[in-house]
Amino acid sequence: MKKLNIGVIGCGFMGRTHSNAFRTAPNFFNLPYLPVLKSICARSPDRAQSFAAQWGYESFETDWRKLVASQDIDLIDIASPNDTHFEIAIAAAKAGKMVMCEKPLGRNPAESEAMVKAVEDAGVANMVWYNYRRVPAVTMAKQLIDEGRLGRIFHYRTVFLQDWTISTELPQGGEGLWRLDASVAGSGVTGDLLAHNIDTAMWLNGPIDEVTAMTETFIKTRKHNLTGKDQPVTIDDASLFLARFKNGSLATFEATRYARGHKALYTFEINGEHASIKWDLHDLHRLEYFDHRDEGKLRGWRSIHITDSDQPYMKNWWVPGLQIGYEHSFIHQAADFLIALGEGKSASPTFAEALKTDYVTSAVLESAANRSWVKVRSL
Amino acid sequence: MKKLNIGVIGCGFMGRTHSNAFRTAPNFFNLPYLPVLKSICARSPDRAQSFAAQWGYESFETDWRKLVASQDIDLIDIASPNDTHFEIAIAAAKAGKMVMCEKPLGRNPAESEAMVKAVEDAGVANMVWYNYRRVPAVTMAKQLIDEGRLGRIFHYRTVFLQDWTISTELPQGGEGLWRLDASVAGSGVTGDLLAHNIDTAMWLNGPIDEVTAMTETFIKTRKHNLTGKDQPVTIDDASLFLARFKNGSLATFEATRYARGHKALYTFEINGEHASIKWDLHDLHRLEYFDHRDEGKLRGWRSIHITDSDQPYMKNWWVPGLQIGYEHSFIHQAADFLIALGEGKSASPTFAEALKTDYVTSAVLESAANRSWVKVRSL
Amino acid sequence: MKKLNIGVIGCGFMGRTHSNAFRTAPNFFNLPYLPVLKSICARSPDRAQSFAAQWGYESFETDWRKLVASQDIDLIDIASPNDTHFEIAIAAAKAGKMVMCEKPLGRNPAESEAMVKAVEDAGVANMVWYNYRRVPAVTMAKQLIDEGRLGRIFHYRTVFLQDWTISTELPQGGEGLWRLDASVAGSGVTGDLLAHNIDTAMWLNGPIDEVTAMTETFIKTRKHNLTGKDQPVTIDDASLFLARFKNGSLATFEATRYARGHKALYTFEINGEHASIKWDLHDLHRLEYFDHRDEGKLRGWRSIHITDSDQPYMKNWWVPGLQIGYEHSFIHQAADFLIALGEGKSASPTFAEALKTDYVTSAVLESAANRSWVKVRSL
Amino acid sequence: MKKLNIGVIGCGFMGRTHSNAFRTAPNFFNLPYLPVLKSICARSPDRAQSFAAQWGYESFETDWRKLVASQDIDLIDIASPNDTHFEIAIAAAKAGKMVMCEKPLGRNPAESEAMVKAVEDAGVANMVWYNYRRVPAVTMAKQLIDEGRLGRIFHYRTVFLQDWTISTELPQGGEGLWRLDASVAGSGVTGDLLAHNIDTAMWLNGPIDEVTAMTETFIKTRKHNLTGKDQPVTIDDASLFLARFKNGSLATFEATRYARGHKALYTFEINGEHASIKWDLHDLHRLEYFDHRDEGKLRGWRSIHITDSDQPYMKNWWVPGLQIGYEHSFIHQAADFLIALGEGKSASPTFAEALKTDYVTSAVLESAANRSWVKVRSL
Repeated sequence: MKKLNIGVIGCGFMGRTHSNAFRTAPNFFNLPYLPVLKSICARSPDRAQSFAAQWGYESFETDWRKLVASQDIDLIDIASPNDTHFEIAIAAAKAGKMVMCEKPLGRNPAESEAMVKAVEDAGVANMVWYNYRRVPAVTMAKQLIDEGRLGRIFHYRTVFLQDWTISTELPQGGEGLWRLDASVAGSGVTGDLLAHNIDTAMWLNGPIDEVTAMTETFIKTRKHNLTGKDQPVTIDDASLFLARFKNGSLATFEATRYARGHKALYTFEINGEHASIKWDLHDLHRLEYFDHRDEGKLRGWRSIHITDSDQPYMKNWWVPGLQIGYEHSFIHQAADFLIALGEGKSASPTFAEALKTDYVTSAVLESAANRSWVKVRSL
Repeated sequence: MKKLNIGVIGCGFMGRTHSNAFRTAPNFFNLPYLPVLKSICARSPDRAQSFAAQWGYESFETDWRKLVASQDIDLIDIASPNDTHFEIAIAAAKAGKMVMCEKPLGRNPAESEAMVKAVEDAGVANMVWYNYRRVPAVTMAKQLIDEGRLGRIFHYRTVFLQDWTISTELPQGGEGLWRLDASVAGSGVTGDLLAHNIDTAMWLNGPIDEVTAMTETFIKTRKHNLTGKDQPVTIDDASLFLARFKNGSLATFEATRYARGHKALYTFEINGEHASIKWDLHDLHRLEYFDHRDEGKLRGWRSIHITDSDQPYMKNWWVPGLQIGYEHSFIHQAADFLIALGEGKSASPTFAEALKTDYVTSAVLESAANRSWVKVRSL
Repeated sequence: MKKLNIGVIGCGFMGRTHSNAFRTAPNFFNLPYLPVLKSICARSPDRAQSFAAQWGYESFETDWRKLVASQDIDLIDIASPNDTHFEIAIAAAKAGKMVMCEKPLGRNPAESEAMVKAVEDAGVANMVWYNYRRVPAVTMAKQLIDEGRLGRIFHYRTVFLQDWTISTELPQGGEGLWRLDASVAGSGVTGDLLAHNIDTAMWLNGPIDEVTAMTETFIKTRKHNLTGKDQPVTIDDASLFLARFKNGSLATFEATRYARGHKALYTFEINGEHASIKWDLHDLHRLEYFDHRDEGKLRGWRSIHITDSDQPYMKNWWVPGLQIGYEHSFIHQAADFLIALGEGKSASPTFAEALKTDYVTSAVLESAANRSWVKVRSL
Repeated sequence: MKKLNIGVIGCGFMGRTHSNAFRTAPNFFNLPYLPVLKSICARSPDRAQSFAAQWGYESFETDWRKLVASQDIDLIDIASPNDTHFEIAIAAAKAGKMVMCEKPLGRNPAESEAMVKAVEDAGVANMVWYNYRRVPAVTMAKQLIDEGRLGRIFHYRTVFLQDWTISTELPQGGEGLWRLDASVAGSGVTGDLLAHNIDTAMWLNGPIDEVTAMTETFIKTRKHNLTGKDQPVTIDDASLFLARFKNGSLATFEATRYARGHKALYTFEINGEHASIKWDLHDLHRLEYFDHRDEGKLRGWRSIHITDSDQPYMKNWWVPGLQIGYEHSFIHQAADFLIALGEGKSASPTFAEALKTDYVTSAVLESAANRSWVKVRSL
């Protein structure tokens, strides 16, 4: 088995999910490449060293340019805050490395377009970590739709609800809190949460044609950790929009960090002519399915426990009835990338595909600002 | 439409459910007889009068013998405490009245056998209010089993969980609390709760062959309301048994009033070769159904919302999606009785059928006392 | 107890729910007036006669003007299609009758305003049957909000999902299908379904300030039952909008008859600073409640079974654990009207209050037509 | 960090869960020892080699005696079929190795007692993989009980339901099917499934005093894979028992492989004076909790999503709302073993503790054979 040397940049939450994905994928999937955790990069040397020890990286760095320049690295994986994606991805592509990037791609479509151009010009394999596509229940939803089981789609509704920023005491900015600073994150929940809803929605139901949106920042100022001062909050705390898909179906999208009682409740429901499906992240191992073609008096929503070997990815795990969790979606995505690489194909979503999501989030922010319907740009 | 004059004895909880059933059935079902609330009987004249006014009874009495003797009454309905069932039912039968009786039939098989003999000797229509058979989801369970959809039955499990007697401060005996006094009630949860589980189980799955049981009285003494003294508690607070049905399936039965968090959680689950079903009283308008013959990857428990016109009794109510409640099971039973009467048939369960349940509860109490397996008597 | 003579117009679905409410309320509530089912009116004499027999009406009519003119009638209850509300209500008010009207009030704000003026000029008691306010779980939601338990409200989301018009074979217009003809109904799901969502939302969360909406008619033509011809469908099949409440909270509203798998799934969720609540019509006897002030590790959504005597309306029904159903919301509303009448008060919602809902539905339809944000008119 | 060299015997389902546990624990927990996957042993050299490659073992063997004899191995982990536990464990203890053993300990109490004696005589660290104790929700249940939150316990009920042996076509014996052969497995569901229920129950609720049981073998003969012949099925397909705990609480236990619709539905519910808890393996990341001390009208079962950092083990994983899965219970158990080792303590359950479970399963089988109540032996 050929080795694939990986340099990961960022050792926060996403640095951990990616490291675990690369490290664990070969135990459960037969892969053409063995991913090697070659080097980890973080700004703090202590943190980088400790992370390297915990995860078995061969080395650590504090300057991502060293990883990009290294002959020993085949693939640069970007797991650092959003404001670093643009520069690192372009440099890595120019250096001929494969590039993986945590979502969203750039902070705005301009950054993302340049990133797409860079990887396409360089002809390097690339992928964005929209991990929820690889939750087995979500992958199965895709299969069911592609098999035509739902028939014509009428409705799509999706939310991403959190409640971790409700306290006025919570500061913004800096370690762990850069998601509250628009200069780093690009936007608030629109890019952080809705981007997931949009990526899944377009994967399952095709392009979004137009949107009308509303955003809100409920708490107007917070102490900024980097300045120590009370400063205006620059992100959107909540973002809601109505959409019309190109296939004529109608949608509601909503994301917020002010929904008390929900930690990370990403849900979607799709209503078709013949059948409907529902899923939610808090019980990610289940898919709810209703089929109108079932015998009349016995029709009901089926709660399908996605743990059987004929369901996506599950033959690689345990036995029926034994559920997997969140991090497995990353393991599946890493495995799919490596398998595709072995076959000379790209694994979805590529940078180009992720750019489409950025066009939607951009349209959402524009619509909210202008209080009007906005057409989504297409590639 | 012929009138059927009804005399109801007892105006407690069951007096209300029966009165409502007779009064409401004709609004929703086309019946061959119009039930007339002729007379209500209670020991307290004030209570009888007030109940008569609230429910539109034409008259009230304080001595049940007057109702039994009355020429104006066609049917005696017994909704009074268990220790009165025996005497009233036999007198009513001898007087040639139709007799309905709240469950359980007698306080023990000897009483029940005499009651069965009385109605059979008199040749009068008779029925026992095991109302849960007429919850539409439960009736549909019966249909599914009779249609052979489950195949060979392997397992039956059922509980009836309440939590209203956990406090040591709760007295026993007298108005509203006679269920805690075995001399009135016959037994504790065995006759009060498990009788329901057993009636449904034998209706759905056939006769029970043998049982091994365990009972417990958790709080040993309580103040008795009629004597004002602290006295031994004579009922079983909890009753559990294992059973083997004649068809070879295995069962667990459990009832208790010490299951914190459950008000009246009657549940059953039946596992067959091809399919399984589940039901619970706290969401009585739903039936859970799993069919192994569904396509493999799409198998799941279906939560069937029993509100459609092709589901039992529901074409007589509202429109799909709109649920009914507890009291409707009594309305259905009253309607079925009147329809059967019009056709010269009996409505199930008759006194004779209810006696079979008493044979099981009696075997349960005997097994618990003797710490041994006990064969259930058959008719 | 004084009698209140009632004339009901319409003997369809709503004629039944109202008749049942008037007939049953006195059995379960202590009321200052005894409602008497005096006369029923329907266009078809056969239907009127049969309905009168089934429900115990003293007489029947085929011309509503006779009921309005009758000295024997104290209260006119309008349960006929939407295009009749305006004329009947105004005539009844002018005749000095109390008036109850099925929702929505008129087909448009102009009709509704005239109806409000008529009852206010006449000084007669009046009420609109937005029945869902009286589902005990919904009433309890109102109590919790009024007690301040949720704190500042951030989000409101609500849907009303049905699936009964998906087939292209379904005709429009005439008996049972007038809801698909905008000339009779006023609008499609906006007035039929969203009106319920809006009424509850403003009751719970205060006035709506502005909306942006989208509507769709998925099936463009259907055979019209009255003409026998294929004709354009004039109603909205689906209606979705974003809203901002005056209190600053954000909302999504959606109603459709194209959501496969849902019969009548009315749901709402409200997220406050301290607590959140959820409710749905398919399990109307439950309220979901999350309180962030609970001890950290034990926080969770509580599924509250609304059947205890300390929960709204439930002390009048059965014992804890025994659920009620859909029609009880109408019984409660009838009881509340009669109790308020006895105290010389109005029962909510009055015609004037229902007009506010019409202002919102009107703004929704205008926004969908103009593709712009629309401010909601206030009284 | 000191290395701990591990030799694993068996590369089936449990070989995988154990290998993953040792390999992953150091990434998520700070451990005093680094577990090293030194050698894997399987009868088939091909299988052993391929497993070694997949999991990164340094070597492989086909004779477990080589592992036991090796100077390079500190710990022998037994993940092979039940009939091998006895001999390997005793040999390993005699060789001075630490020993871990998959449950159940031996095939019967005699084997288990000898195994306990061996590890105690040798003074070596030992543990049995009753992994479900380390599902965070189950661990939290233990905390809640130990904190006294439930008060006096009245009831315990637990099932383990599967449906994988219903087909008469399924053979018995040999690779993957040794669980259907009593000479290898010791017993059927009693030792395979109920052992889990019993281990958890005694951990949470203390010793079991006596039992009355019933077992059944539904399909009497199956083709044996090793002989090719149709042979009597020697295991119990289903096993049910009633129990009385030493603390006076009552219990039902049931396990079967004939419960259509359930893959691996391990559930338990505990009812105490003040509070109750429920858990099930199909949604293992949730704990249901009811507290009667909550304000009356707001009481309800709380569905607690066990993903927060103040809940057991979860601060080591992701962020709130992101669930873990089945294999994590093994990772936690491996981590706890290593942490305890660093502190010179034993991690629970030791061999001695697991023997208590064998005493209960043995009493269950005896009771079923004798049709009588049986006292459980104590240490």
